[in-house]
Amino acid sequence: MSFGQSLSLVTLPVADVARARAFYERLGWKASSDSQPGVAFFDCGGTVLSLYGRDDLARDCGRPIAAPGGVTLASNVADAEAVALAVDAFAAAGGTVVSEPEMAPWGGTIAYVADPDGHLWEIAHNPFWPLDAAGRVTLPPPAGA
Amino acid sequence: MSFGQSLSLVTLPVADVARARAFYERLGWKASSDSQPGVAFFDCGGTVLSLYGRDDLARDCGRPIAAPGGVTLASNVADAEAVALAVDAFAAAGGTVVSEPEMAPWGGTIAYVADPDGHLWEIAHNPFWPLDAAGRVTLPPPAGA
Repeated sequence: MSFGQSLSLVTLPVADVARARAFYERLGWKASSDSQPGVAFFDCGGTVLSLYGRDDLARDCGRPIAAPGGVTLASNVADAEAVALAVDAFAAAGGTVVSEPEMAPWGGTIAYVADPDGHLWEIAHNPFWPLDAAGRVTLPPPAGA
Repeated sequence: MSFGQSLSLVTLPVADVARARAFYERLGWKASSDSQPGVAFFDCGGTVLSLYGRDDLARDCGRPIAAPGGVTLASNVADAEAVALAVDAFAAAGGTVVSEPEMAPWGGTIAYVADPDGHLWEIAHNPFWPLDAAGRVTLPPPAGA
């Protein structure tokens, strides 16, 4: 048994689950009906984004949880204009703009924003990675696959 | 334009991309052929796990990157025995066991491990969330959806 190449959930520890959930709902996100007062689940096309209390996660892990901002999450969008619109939507919902949209050296357009708990999101348009009908990136397979 | 409910990539900043990539390859993971010396991409069923240099990410964001361990990634597996086997595989590849598998109050089995750069993974069996043929969790839809 190996450790399968899967990413089932990403859990963001938050100070207040209801407040954090309300932020993502202001972005238009819809939580699963499995969500509860102490945890919220958003289906992001297979991988689930989970909002969970910082103290609860520390108890589960058996150790303190580090400060946010040590990982970035990315949402890829259809074109450069959509990057700017998504940054505006994020800010309007109560997030923070970390860096305005700019052309990256590799040819895409990226911006960084942070949610109210300080979790970093990259909003990106990557012209080399088409999005499928469900909005998922289509990645070239491993060599020889 | 809202901020779409999507999670395209999760980027883990690492000290040495080649070393971090080798760790995940020892788990049996296969990197996309779009990977380069400075970045590695693993397709996890729609969401991509990316390994990227810590200094490069700080430059892109325009600010220092926080220490790892402020977010947990989860890989859900088929049963409780598979949790224990995955923990063993993670440790054998050079990872650290943070907490041994145990029954969670909600009825699942979970363990926490860390990769060589300190990024936390939860390995979980959740009997209430079936996995589809591609290994993705199947989440109940939003209420009213």
